Amino acid sequence: MPHLGKHLICEYYGCSLNILNDVALVQKGMHEAALFAGATILDERFQEFEPHGISGVVIIAESHLTVHTWPEYGYAAIDVFTCGEQIDPLDAAKFLKAFLGAEKLTVETLKRGFFSPSERSVLPHKPQMKNESHDVR
Amino acid sequence: MPHLGKHLICEYYGCSLNILNDVALVQKGMHEAALFAGATILDERFQEFEPHGISGVVIIAESHLTVHTWPEYGYAAIDVFTCGEQIDPLDAAKFLKAFLGAEKLTVETLKRGFFSPSERSVLPHKPQMKNESHDVR
Repeated sequence: MPHLGKHLICEYYGCSLNILNDVALVQKGMHEAALFAGATILDERFQEFEPHGISGVVIIAESHLTVHTWPEYGYAAIDVFTCGEQIDPLDAAKFLKAFLGAEKLTVETLKRGFFSPSERSVLPHKPQMKNESHDVR
Repeated sequence: MPHLGKHLICEYYGCSLNILNDVALVQKGMHEAALFAGATILDERFQEFEPHGISGVVIIAESHLTVHTWPEYGYAAIDVFTCGEQIDPLDAAKFLKAFLGAEKLTVETLKRGFFSPSERSVLPHKPQMKNESHDVR
């Protein structure tokens, strides 16, 4: 059945500890992974925690990438969610395996938003941004 | 086997079209869902698209919530990813079913980051923020 989005659940084990706890490096890796896959970056936010751990998101026109790192385990949980047929999220996932120096990567592929052909619209989805990001905080 | 994170893949069908294409309402719903589940909100970013569709993320101390809406299908793809035992992500998922007026919600529960007991650290994860969010763009 047709679906609207492709969502990769990526688990990176045995990563470089130096990278996993360096917010600038993690952001650089996520940013470059999005570009490597051909995505259009709209916004990105990263957060560092004490004593360790980083969370971050890259909002792309095609949906998003997120990351959470557990340096104490050498582990990163990364999602790559894309819609449309223009980019392959697996390109970003593989890029990040190399970037993080991960010994092991597992990927689970989820299909999001199932509709029967009769329900499909001919409208293109998200062809352009309407305006800049909102932030009410 | 012990795991580090709990990730709900939530599919909302038959939602209120008026809500799905109103960025302020979608942001309000995601914000309130995070609070309803007892999460600590650190940052949030929402993006509206032409002619329709909204993407957004709420970064919480416990991980994240993301949303992508397809108003033309009455559909929203929402993720609720949490670590720790303090909050139940299903509370946020159920809150959003009511908020979006969804006729149907399907939830797939993923466990993220598996480690054997011997690999577990006694360090608490992300007990506090280190500093404010970064944005290099």
